[in-house]
Amino acid sequence: MSDAMSLPLGYRYAAAYAGIRKVEKDDVALIVSDSPASAAAVFTKNRVVAGPVTVARQNLRASRGRMQAILANAGNANCATPTSERVAVETTRAVGQTLGIVPHCVLPASTGVIGVELDARKIVDVLPKLKAALEPASFDAAASAILTTDTRSKTAFAQVKGTRIAGMAKGSGMIHPRMATTLAFVMTDAVVPPAALRTALKQAIERSFNRISVDGDTSTNDTVAVFANGASKLTPSARAFGEALAEVLASLAQQIVKDGEGAKKFVTIEVRGAATEAAAEKIARSIANSPLVKTAIAGSDPNWGRILSAAGNAGVAFDPRHADIDMQHVAVCRGGLAANFVEEDLKKKLDAPECSIQFTLRGRGRGQTRFWTCDLTEEYIRINASYRT
Amino acid sequence: MSDAMSLPLGYRYAAAYAGIRKVEKDDVALIVSDSPASAAAVFTKNRVVAGPVTVARQNLRASRGRMQAILANAGNANCATPTSERVAVETTRAVGQTLGIVPHCVLPASTGVIGVELDARKIVDVLPKLKAALEPASFDAAASAILTTDTRSKTAFAQVKGTRIAGMAKGSGMIHPRMATTLAFVMTDAVVPPAALRTALKQAIERSFNRISVDGDTSTNDTVAVFANGASKLTPSARAFGEALAEVLASLAQQIVKDGEGAKKFVTIEVRGAATEAAAEKIARSIANSPLVKTAIAGSDPNWGRILSAAGNAGVAFDPRHADIDMQHVAVCRGGLAANFVEEDLKKKLDAPECSIQFTLRGRGRGQTRFWTCDLTEEYIRINASYRT
Repeated sequence: MSDAMSLPLGYRYAAAYAGIRKVEKDDVALIVSDSPASAAAVFTKNRVVAGPVTVARQNLRASRGRMQAILANAGNANCATPTSERVAVETTRAVGQTLGIVPHCVLPASTGVIGVELDARKIVDVLPKLKAALEPASFDAAASAILTTDTRSKTAFAQVKGTRIAGMAKGSGMIHPRMATTLAFVMTDAVVPPAALRTALKQAIERSFNRISVDGDTSTNDTVAVFANGASKLTPSARAFGEALAEVLASLAQQIVKDGEGAKKFVTIEVRGAATEAAAEKIARSIANSPLVKTAIAGSDPNWGRILSAAGNAGVAFDPRHADIDMQHVAVCRGGLAANFVEEDLKKKLDAPECSIQFTLRGRGRGQTRFWTCDLTEEYIRINASYRT
Repeated sequence: MSDAMSLPLGYRYAAAYAGIRKVEKDDVALIVSDSPASAAAVFTKNRVVAGPVTVARQNLRASRGRMQAILANAGNANCATPTSERVAVETTRAVGQTLGIVPHCVLPASTGVIGVELDARKIVDVLPKLKAALEPASFDAAASAILTTDTRSKTAFAQVKGTRIAGMAKGSGMIHPRMATTLAFVMTDAVVPPAALRTALKQAIERSFNRISVDGDTSTNDTVAVFANGASKLTPSARAFGEALAEVLASLAQQIVKDGEGAKKFVTIEVRGAATEAAAEKIARSIANSPLVKTAIAGSDPNWGRILSAAGNAGVAFDPRHADIDMQHVAVCRGGLAANFVEEDLKKKLDAPECSIQFTLRGRGRGQTRFWTCDLTEEYIRINASYRT
């Protein structure tokens, strides 16, 4: 939950129900900066891209990275329909008119079902109400309006050299590590020029949203956007700001993993001793994406053979005789062979809601990484076999 | 089930219980050719490789592709233990002594749990019994002895120009398409020189075991081996033999998919109009490996948006406006947009045990492929969360 002290200055938020979801729960969020803000965003790398992503990219370019509002809706991805881009343009234009700001200073984002037309009027009609409701205290209401199958809101806050950063995110399934994942909006009142903001976002993404995995799929709508409006009039160092931004994004990314569809356990995978960080990441990703590893974790099964095998599938050359594996900091594999551990004791430790896997290539390189994923449960199947119905 | 007419001449089979499995069910299979046979095999591409795979490779090289026996066991993968290779060497040597053949003419293969030592004596002790039991009619008994979580035997037969091909396979989980998958042994009495056999196997694998996917993981023990002992004294053309071999392997591969852990539905994915066959394969694989597509199929949900999104994740450039998708031969997406179909009718069609997805890039290249996978069900999780216990 946010409090007045943790919220960056100069932002107001609002949420409303526009009738896009079937159930009556806020489905549109509006985020407005009092003045134009530096803006940076990363988007899905899927070849199939929703209209709002295309329009967001165009607006970021047209505004030269100076934007003022975010319009987000849940319940409909506004993707793979004949009107997808037009709806994104129409609704962002309507926001511009309603607020009296330049239309291309509005960043659109949508999440929900693909292939069903989104009715622009539903959003346009609710804009006066949203405008009237705008206030700083509605941060949490906005964070709640963007959720879909999420079971809880995701927010994160940081302070750096007297400035504030606040982030909200949506996501639980269709989470993929490769790039921007799900929806996340981060606001700060620090003074950060657009180019510096882009650099900070790129670096922070690399160690947060690009290091998580729920089911290996990327959505057509993934968007992570950061606004910096400078309302604090304070300029933290690039390094300090970058670290604080990374902290906020890592918290949001981890909350998304913890809320993974049907997930019961949060899994941290650490890889050390790879030749490069990229190699470490490949190994970590392969372990994190293995359904056999993820189901073993669900069953509290210290099946290190599956971890070793998943690492072997990563496309990274290594000698299994140098591979050590620990689970819950208990040695389960040394030099590619079973370590001496008490299976029953470790099974009990694996019943914990947070599990850790350490994969170390002994005496090798300095490449290391940390990766987050969740277990794979029967509940995941239940949710995803009936999402549209 | 095999009958005397469908079995290639000059092979004998035996199965026995050596006490490797916990339950008393045959766990060792022996396959013997009356005379040295041309032999070819493909193995896992996992970096972590079981001892029997290493020894099989060595023996294939040492024998210059002329082998005479296959020794396979279930219940223990003989992998990631200090004695892994030694056990493979010892047991194949013992087969050579028992049968009076050169030890490096024996191909070992194991499947089962990783990281637990396999006791060579258990196999060695049962060899006299196996030798005594060797007969052509025990083909089915051998096919049954190599199974693990499989719910049924997989066998396939073909005849070509008066010669016979018979294959058996084991596999249901840990099935990955990249290369040799699970265990499969194919015997033929055709005359085929080793080099021609290698070529035929390589080509046949490409359109069978490399086109299936259950859960995206590759095992440490995957082995597909083919023996051609020439007992028929007939030499089919390379083309005719290659096609018959591909037919047998495709049947085995499809049976493995149908027996995918917890799978209720068999899914055929056809991709057409890609620039190249490799591009078509990437798209098909991405659709086949998407947990969101696989759970939608489990739920009979015509969620073509997930198929389009999975294709977009394949790393292949295409314009979604050229993408057509059919499910059960019903148009669900045309030019990247929803086609006009009756959802309730299609849901009923998707309740069938065999489902098809066609993904076509309109007016594009000639690259096409066919790929097989299964749905992802709650049962898959149940099996894999408790495999070792």
